[in-house]
Amino acid sequence: MKNTFGNSLNITLFGESHGKSIGAVIDGLAPGIKIDENYIAEKLAKRRPKDKTATSRREPDVYEIQSGVSNGYTTGTPLCIIIPNTDTQSKNYDDLYGKARPGHADYTAFLKYHGFEDARGGGHFSGRITAALVAAGAIISYALKNKGIYIGTHVKNCAGISDFCFSDNAERDIKALLGKDFPVLSDEAYEKMKKAVIDAKCDNDSVGGILETAVIGMPRGVGEPWFDTVEGMLSKAVFSVPAVKGVEFGLGFGFADKKGSEANDEFCVNESGNIITKTNNNGGINGGITNGMPIVFRCAVKPTPSISKIQETVDFKKGENTQIQIHGRHDPCIAFRACPVIDAVTAITLADLLVLRFGTDYLSDN
Amino acid sequence: MKNTFGNSLNITLFGESHGKSIGAVIDGLAPGIKIDENYIAEKLAKRRPKDKTATSRREPDVYEIQSGVSNGYTTGTPLCIIIPNTDTQSKNYDDLYGKARPGHADYTAFLKYHGFEDARGGGHFSGRITAALVAAGAIISYALKNKGIYIGTHVKNCAGISDFCFSDNAERDIKALLGKDFPVLSDEAYEKMKKAVIDAKCDNDSVGGILETAVIGMPRGVGEPWFDTVEGMLSKAVFSVPAVKGVEFGLGFGFADKKGSEANDEFCVNESGNIITKTNNNGGINGGITNGMPIVFRCAVKPTPSISKIQETVDFKKGENTQIQIHGRHDPCIAFRACPVIDAVTAITLADLLVLRFGTDYLSDN
Amino acid sequence: MKNTFGNSLNITLFGESHGKSIGAVIDGLAPGIKIDENYIAEKLAKRRPKDKTATSRREPDVYEIQSGVSNGYTTGTPLCIIIPNTDTQSKNYDDLYGKARPGHADYTAFLKYHGFEDARGGGHFSGRITAALVAAGAIISYALKNKGIYIGTHVKNCAGISDFCFSDNAERDIKALLGKDFPVLSDEAYEKMKKAVIDAKCDNDSVGGILETAVIGMPRGVGEPWFDTVEGMLSKAVFSVPAVKGVEFGLGFGFADKKGSEANDEFCVNESGNIITKTNNNGGINGGITNGMPIVFRCAVKPTPSISKIQETVDFKKGENTQIQIHGRHDPCIAFRACPVIDAVTAITLADLLVLRFGTDYLSDN
Amino acid sequence: MKNTFGNSLNITLFGESHGKSIGAVIDGLAPGIKIDENYIAEKLAKRRPKDKTATSRREPDVYEIQSGVSNGYTTGTPLCIIIPNTDTQSKNYDDLYGKARPGHADYTAFLKYHGFEDARGGGHFSGRITAALVAAGAIISYALKNKGIYIGTHVKNCAGISDFCFSDNAERDIKALLGKDFPVLSDEAYEKMKKAVIDAKCDNDSVGGILETAVIGMPRGVGEPWFDTVEGMLSKAVFSVPAVKGVEFGLGFGFADKKGSEANDEFCVNESGNIITKTNNNGGINGGITNGMPIVFRCAVKPTPSISKIQETVDFKKGENTQIQIHGRHDPCIAFRACPVIDAVTAITLADLLVLRFGTDYLSDN
Repeated sequence: MKNTFGNSLNITLFGESHGKSIGAVIDGLAPGIKIDENYIAEKLAKRRPKDKTATSRREPDVYEIQSGVSNGYTTGTPLCIIIPNTDTQSKNYDDLYGKARPGHADYTAFLKYHGFEDARGGGHFSGRITAALVAAGAIISYALKNKGIYIGTHVKNCAGISDFCFSDNAERDIKALLGKDFPVLSDEAYEKMKKAVIDAKCDNDSVGGILETAVIGMPRGVGEPWFDTVEGMLSKAVFSVPAVKGVEFGLGFGFADKKGSEANDEFCVNESGNIITKTNNNGGINGGITNGMPIVFRCAVKPTPSISKIQETVDFKKGENTQIQIHGRHDPCIAFRACPVIDAVTAITLADLLVLRFGTDYLSDN
Repeated sequence: MKNTFGNSLNITLFGESHGKSIGAVIDGLAPGIKIDENYIAEKLAKRRPKDKTATSRREPDVYEIQSGVSNGYTTGTPLCIIIPNTDTQSKNYDDLYGKARPGHADYTAFLKYHGFEDARGGGHFSGRITAALVAAGAIISYALKNKGIYIGTHVKNCAGISDFCFSDNAERDIKALLGKDFPVLSDEAYEKMKKAVIDAKCDNDSVGGILETAVIGMPRGVGEPWFDTVEGMLSKAVFSVPAVKGVEFGLGFGFADKKGSEANDEFCVNESGNIITKTNNNGGINGGITNGMPIVFRCAVKPTPSISKIQETVDFKKGENTQIQIHGRHDPCIAFRACPVIDAVTAITLADLLVLRFGTDYLSDN
Repeated sequence: MKNTFGNSLNITLFGESHGKSIGAVIDGLAPGIKIDENYIAEKLAKRRPKDKTATSRREPDVYEIQSGVSNGYTTGTPLCIIIPNTDTQSKNYDDLYGKARPGHADYTAFLKYHGFEDARGGGHFSGRITAALVAAGAIISYALKNKGIYIGTHVKNCAGISDFCFSDNAERDIKALLGKDFPVLSDEAYEKMKKAVIDAKCDNDSVGGILETAVIGMPRGVGEPWFDTVEGMLSKAVFSVPAVKGVEFGLGFGFADKKGSEANDEFCVNESGNIITKTNNNGGINGGITNGMPIVFRCAVKPTPSISKIQETVDFKKGENTQIQIHGRHDPCIAFRACPVIDAVTAITLADLLVLRFGTDYLSDN
Repeated sequence: MKNTFGNSLNITLFGESHGKSIGAVIDGLAPGIKIDENYIAEKLAKRRPKDKTATSRREPDVYEIQSGVSNGYTTGTPLCIIIPNTDTQSKNYDDLYGKARPGHADYTAFLKYHGFEDARGGGHFSGRITAALVAAGAIISYALKNKGIYIGTHVKNCAGISDFCFSDNAERDIKALLGKDFPVLSDEAYEKMKKAVIDAKCDNDSVGGILETAVIGMPRGVGEPWFDTVEGMLSKAVFSVPAVKGVEFGLGFGFADKKGSEANDEFCVNESGNIITKTNNNGGINGGITNGMPIVFRCAVKPTPSISKIQETVDFKKGENTQIQIHGRHDPCIAFRACPVIDAVTAITLADLLVLRFGTDYLSDN
């Protein structure tokens, strides 16, 4: 299905960085979900570049809903949302075509699209497309919120600097993140990260990071044992976000050094009479199915491939070695701006699993 | 699609650990792929428990092809393969029902299937089902091999002991693995790992590990930018393998501490006139699409949750706290036996992407 | 997805007429659906050839459930059902290969599978495969019945002889069909049809027919406006049944000669306070969505292509003209035996739409 | 997948009759397909109401391609096409809400969307949406044309008046249709049909019809035996077109009265050495797979449900009986305007089957 994700509720992405617009179609949304424009605007604002840690491209991200909404509520039919591109400076890219930017998809796009790809600004591979994901995800996460399901992502690591982990009170942490301009739990850590990012930028370089996501309130018993596991579905969505190169749930790679007796999450009945686990090493998922504990996962974000240093590369049109120096505007670190994108794909994935499990009316506010 | 994976070529898994049989249906296979019974048997042998590092359950894994093969070649119509269960000792599990084994899917299965699940031996969640995956994967990887595509997986880490990494000569390493009884490049590392596993077993405990997979010969320009990325498709398949809790490509989580200038893979034209990258930090994938370099990824395997120590847990039928001590037969470490399973799901995933890209006859030998 | 049908609940078919077995995997079944072996046997009996109107091939249709059932109830995991082939006489077909039987798929199978197809008895194209559809459909229709949804199909026309139409009391008619050996509402019409079929057989020929299906008790508001319409989903399933070449809903092709004022179904509130339509020209579906009236459709079944007369044809291996005379065993009319197959695909399709609409537990008896 | 059709090449529809815009996303298009704006405009013109046989709503159908096209060629990434709604007169519909228009989807939309549907002008169920289908279909059929695949649809029957059938020279007929303002092979028949339609309109009524479609040049060996048959895929697409209630291939329902010896298409080698059938009763498809003969099918189109006569109905909001008289603008017969829509869905369906069969580059001009 290529550029479509989801089974019972799905999203189709379209658009190129310097094309007319980018956008998404959401199909399978319940009727009667309120469209809260402030909420959507807030989510888009979190993705928008804000200070020196980000690109100087400034898009207002004014979205236009073409269909699927009537009187402020979803109709239940496909919702198409469009975000026009306005602040494009294609001339910066014109002389680059043929020169593969290292770490980018220029060369693989050429292999797949044989030179017909819209290469300006990364085209369909651009992080710009994630604005549509965030808008679509906001519509969905608003509905999830009304069901008591909250999602939050913070920068766990950036340029070697660590944020706090999510605490036992994930709900409090998720809500704390809502009030912050930058998705870092520790303000002190954020200041250090910011400095490191700006230093890298001054050095014509970029830095990577690790994001951590928590979801609370997810119903138990959702997911499938083989293939459509919660881990598999989430990871497929998360790996679509440009620059993500690793995904782990709960202890993740940390399991490798653990004994079973340390790693197993023992069950108990809590004070409210609910079955919980004493630890959450499995990140809320057993056998691919939610167990009622917070879903916790992390993803690795590589340093932005666009750097201003001179790099060795090839001109794939000519088939010869050359050098490249990337000018244009780019983010020295995308970890911060990627957080709302991870929130969005998480919302889309979980909504799909919920609608499959509980039917097409499940997400309705009514 | 739940228990089905793939778009153009797909596999549907069925069966429970102690049911009549387990099996798989492969649909979308080209006609004219040779069924090499020795090759399949060899792959199944690699998954089979062999020494004290593994369970004492001994299944012959005699498979029966029900359909889709005629005169030793695939017909192009759905191939159903069945592996009867024979060595089942269900009584070991009978008294356990209701007591959630920590780290297992017992409780989530109950949440999803409301007590109708076949809980014996983990039922449909059991690692036993992976025998069908390996058989199906073997049929497919044989076809891939004929196209020059080779897949190999080794235990990169186990109980804190490290194997060599794949070298620059991934082809040699993959072929070296074929000749080994245990999927570890360094014999010395294997001996240490083996000792650690047996020690854990003696201690009624279990250990985890990290597997590393390499694929060579994969055509360039395969994969989709959004959602059906090579990373996303592979990770979805790999997370289906029981106990996998993390997947990373290329440098993966190691990207977090790198600068862009270190992480970017510079391109060059090699001596044969082919475009390659000097390093392979991106694991052969840019923008979700293969770039011609080896595909390299790692997955984290948690320690087997079945341990013989007494553990705190709940009886979910009664809703009360209790304890559990798991007898029965189980693997103190599944990292070794998981390697051919990862090979299998890798083969299935890549075959699906290739058939989508190049058409339904692509994998034919003819 | 090729040989898989359905989104939320799906079925995958496998097998060839003269292979080891035929079968089906049903995935997405709710846990807790009772497996009523008598009910399944009854449905298979209706498909089985019984008298001179049918082939002399006699298969016991002994099915074996491999997975997905425990203690007589579905577990919620994939259910694989297998029906071994026993009464195969492949030698009848051996000398035919290369000679395209007119009206059959021999030539198109060769085009698609390049000679690797299992051509014996029609291979994967054989009506034999429908035994697996009927068995799978029976498991599902039993669950539908428990929800008050009943399906019935009769031979509306055969060899120019007409049965009664479904009356206003479709429920009574559907139940009447259950008690009959042959799916014809009028016993008199059946006797005439039977004579016509046997006459055709004596003449080394075959006859076609029209089947009519009614479904009562289907919940309202199920189906999708575009593409996954109830008509579109049902027709896709029904056209899979070998020999079906037309599908129409309600008045169907009869709409062509009607005025809007005659064709429109006026709505009214009935004595029970329910909204119904006074007529049911639309066959229970408006805008692709169920409206609460019986779903009514008809399909055209072509005369069995296997006839014993000498026919002109080609040998596609040699690329030359030749003649063929088909011996072997075949049905002079498949309309009668096709009725339970249409019932089965109808059950599968509606179950899929219901599970999508109301969630994965909907069909559970519990 | 609801409002998405296709597997390897797919289309997602969105929009409501009186919303901001309608549109479609095509995904899986090869790169390098020329966008011929005149060709698209021509196809849209054929769907546009032209004379008194059609509604007086006049939309310019100015489409805007948002993505997926660069320098006049497809890029290979999702192509989003939007057609803004301009000539909407919603007030005509405002007082209707709650009153179910007989034969329309008002009541079923209410059942499904619980009153949140955009009911104006039929909302997402409106024939208006087919403008997007036609635009998308035109992009695809242009590519098919470059592969030698031509599609044509004519009004075979309307108000009891018959057009010629497609002759043995389907290519000539298809090309003749291209030059005509109205899709009827016989000009005389068209004049009679036109009169009958206008008469019906004067009588505040409407008429139905039968459309016949032929496809030539389709490669042999395309389609799948079970479920994804050419008949099943085409019928699913065709039943999505509003007002279609029957689909038949080749002889279709005419098979019911035929003997096997009359119905079977005998094969022969023609003068060019190609294998053909002497007759084409099977409409170019055997066993769900193309055999190289023209694909021929017909669909039944019901009379437009919107008529100006007073009709009995219910107010579903109040749950009581009432009457309705539909004013507004509507077509007294949609058979003529439906022809390019059937062409479009045929193109989309066949393109999907071709891409699945021959790979994602198949449709490229290059």
